Amino acid sequence: MDVTISQSTFERALSVAGRAVPSRATLPTLTHVLLQAEPGRLKVAGTDLNLAIITWEEALVSEPGGITVPAKPLAEFISALPDEPIHLRVHRETWTLQIVCGSYETAMKGLDPEEYPILPDLEGDGFALDPEDFRLAIDQVTFAAAADETRPILTGVLIRWEEGHGGGAGGAAALTLAAADGYRLSVKTLPVLRAPVAASEPGSTFSVIVPASTLKEVGRILKGETEPVSMMVLRGRNQVGFRLSRAAVLSQLIEGQFPDFQAIIPKRWETRVEISREALWKACKALSVFARETSNAVRLALIPGEGDQPGQVLLQSRSPEKGETRVAIDALVEGNRLEIAFNVRFLMDVLEAIEGDWVAFEMTTPQSPVKVLSVGDPSFVHVVMPMFL
Amino acid sequence: MDVTISQSTFERALSVAGRAVPSRATLPTLTHVLLQAEPGRLKVAGTDLNLAIITWEEALVSEPGGITVPAKPLAEFISALPDEPIHLRVHRETWTLQIVCGSYETAMKGLDPEEYPILPDLEGDGFALDPEDFRLAIDQVTFAAAADETRPILTGVLIRWEEGHGGGAGGAAALTLAAADGYRLSVKTLPVLRAPVAASEPGSTFSVIVPASTLKEVGRILKGETEPVSMMVLRGRNQVGFRLSRAAVLSQLIEGQFPDFQAIIPKRWETRVEISREALWKACKALSVFARETSNAVRLALIPGEGDQPGQVLLQSRSPEKGETRVAIDALVEGNRLEIAFNVRFLMDVLEAIEGDWVAFEMTTPQSPVKVLSVGDPSFVHVVMPMFL
Repeated sequence: MDVTISQSTFERALSVAGRAVPSRATLPTLTHVLLQAEPGRLKVAGTDLNLAIITWEEALVSEPGGITVPAKPLAEFISALPDEPIHLRVHRETWTLQIVCGSYETAMKGLDPEEYPILPDLEGDGFALDPEDFRLAIDQVTFAAAADETRPILTGVLIRWEEGHGGGAGGAAALTLAAADGYRLSVKTLPVLRAPVAASEPGSTFSVIVPASTLKEVGRILKGETEPVSMMVLRGRNQVGFRLSRAAVLSQLIEGQFPDFQAIIPKRWETRVEISREALWKACKALSVFARETSNAVRLALIPGEGDQPGQVLLQSRSPEKGETRVAIDALVEGNRLEIAFNVRFLMDVLEAIEGDWVAFEMTTPQSPVKVLSVGDPSFVHVVMPMFL
Repeated sequence: MDVTISQSTFERALSVAGRAVPSRATLPTLTHVLLQAEPGRLKVAGTDLNLAIITWEEALVSEPGGITVPAKPLAEFISALPDEPIHLRVHRETWTLQIVCGSYETAMKGLDPEEYPILPDLEGDGFALDPEDFRLAIDQVTFAAAADETRPILTGVLIRWEEGHGGGAGGAAALTLAAADGYRLSVKTLPVLRAPVAASEPGSTFSVIVPASTLKEVGRILKGETEPVSMMVLRGRNQVGFRLSRAAVLSQLIEGQFPDFQAIIPKRWETRVEISREALWKACKALSVFARETSNAVRLALIPGEGDQPGQVLLQSRSPEKGETRVAIDALVEGNRLEIAFNVRFLMDVLEAIEGDWVAFEMTTPQSPVKVLSVGDPSFVHVVMPMFL
């Protein structure tokens, strides 16, 4: 291998692929990154066997070939080098990577790339997705997935396809993404730019469960991406792949049956409030200080307007040790007056996931699931359980 | 107490005074801040009994008085409020602080301010110091103080005054600051704008040892200060005080005898190098990646120039696991060729403390203390022990 690549390009590639590299592993080669010189480009890859991230960056390749080297020290060292061309050469007798940059000369110990796991190429027909739409969908859904592994299925995001049941604007072709942790549920419909041939047949359906952590990594890499992303399911390997213009992410799927989330979404309401997302978020942030000792509980009183008076949302949190705080926010309140309590962390999470200026809450009783909507955006639905006080 | 103060001002005061508040304390009142309304201003103070930080901020005071409230929740809550006037009122029957800001209404549980430690006023004659000079001196000296408590005296900074032995530019009145941790020593002379009357008598001397952690806090508060700072020693209380325009820091002194640091400073050299501070720092940063498994050791070869050839500093670090790296930097090398090794962390520390573009190292043998100077700045001297390899 004999490659010349710019320092900033190499630094970026190592930072992207490095996110899949475990800090410890029983197999030493897994703490390495794979460097593979192909005609005109350098491939940099990392994997923990569940998740793999592969990037390709433009490089001057005089001689193809590869090596693996410890990921963290290499990334740290390359980021400390001056922004000049870096010359990489492999000595195969000792599996040493020679790194020359300006007046720096370095020999780094590596391993034979043959010992590295084989990462399949992501060729083939997939769902083409707009990168910005997909990034937003990931942000709006993954936060509702479970963080603990008690029920592994809930650490995943359901991605479902039903030909002819798009659900997106005007019933266009769309994927449905859903995540739930037992206390809350996020559902998002994501337009499909182009469906693969196999999925385009009438009545064609499928669903997979992708680890939320995988999708968060995909979301991170999507920042700044301008080309459509291709999502493909590798059925034989029980894997899902995401192909970007200069990177690919490959991940194991989670096996099992995702809960019937449609049944959880409330179909009617007795009280509905439309409120400024920013004002409510700021109030939650301030009140959270007083909510710590009471399991993050905040109480809301939803008071419909009368005559010229606007409706109001009164928020209150109380700590036996610190005291109590309350704030009133003008809002459009329809239906019955209602008092209800929430985990303030859950409220803040969904308010951060929504992009619009106005958010709607649809409620029936203080003990029933609450529907949260982004006003004017039918593609997103959230459900959150109130707290019982 | 009945006070109106702007949210941003109150937030800043709580953040400054809060740095002296311990997160846990056997005496509950110590985890509180003291709020004391005085004519035209609100005093906010925190202390852990070793260190006290007091700030005064402009406020509309309708009724003087005071209270103490838990420092962390109050600071966190105030920082979450909108930037509007905050109205503070104390209910003495229950020692409750009422906080009203916009539509927020809060009652926070506090304690009688009589239970709070008495913090003496810092009135009287002190050393007047330029705030920017003092901040720089603190940065250049405190990093060399010991972090561990094995020898408590070394966690302090010696501040010494000898009338007529200024040591500063032109022998003007100056304080000497020194800190050492057994491996390195930093000495700085700091001009005095005005000495107190008692210290102005011929032959007058004194020295105190101030905790380095105290000086770091003073340095933090000094950012943005434009007025001279007054340093005064409260002999009867074994304390030192620093009076700024809107804040004061009060600290216990460390008792004991500071090592004779003058004896440690080398008086002559066999090899002297002048080198770009930035180039050397960057090289240290890159080489540090390979120095982790060898106690952070980097080797330097100092090679004098010959004829038209400039001198060079060759740096090298080697890890039995990762490999090795080397870099050459052009430099002005006088005297004998020398090979020597340093803890790269110590090199980076002193390079970060120096402000000038060029740094000089004066050496005799690979085992002798090395003098480090900022070229063109006689007010700073550093000594670092080489590593024995």
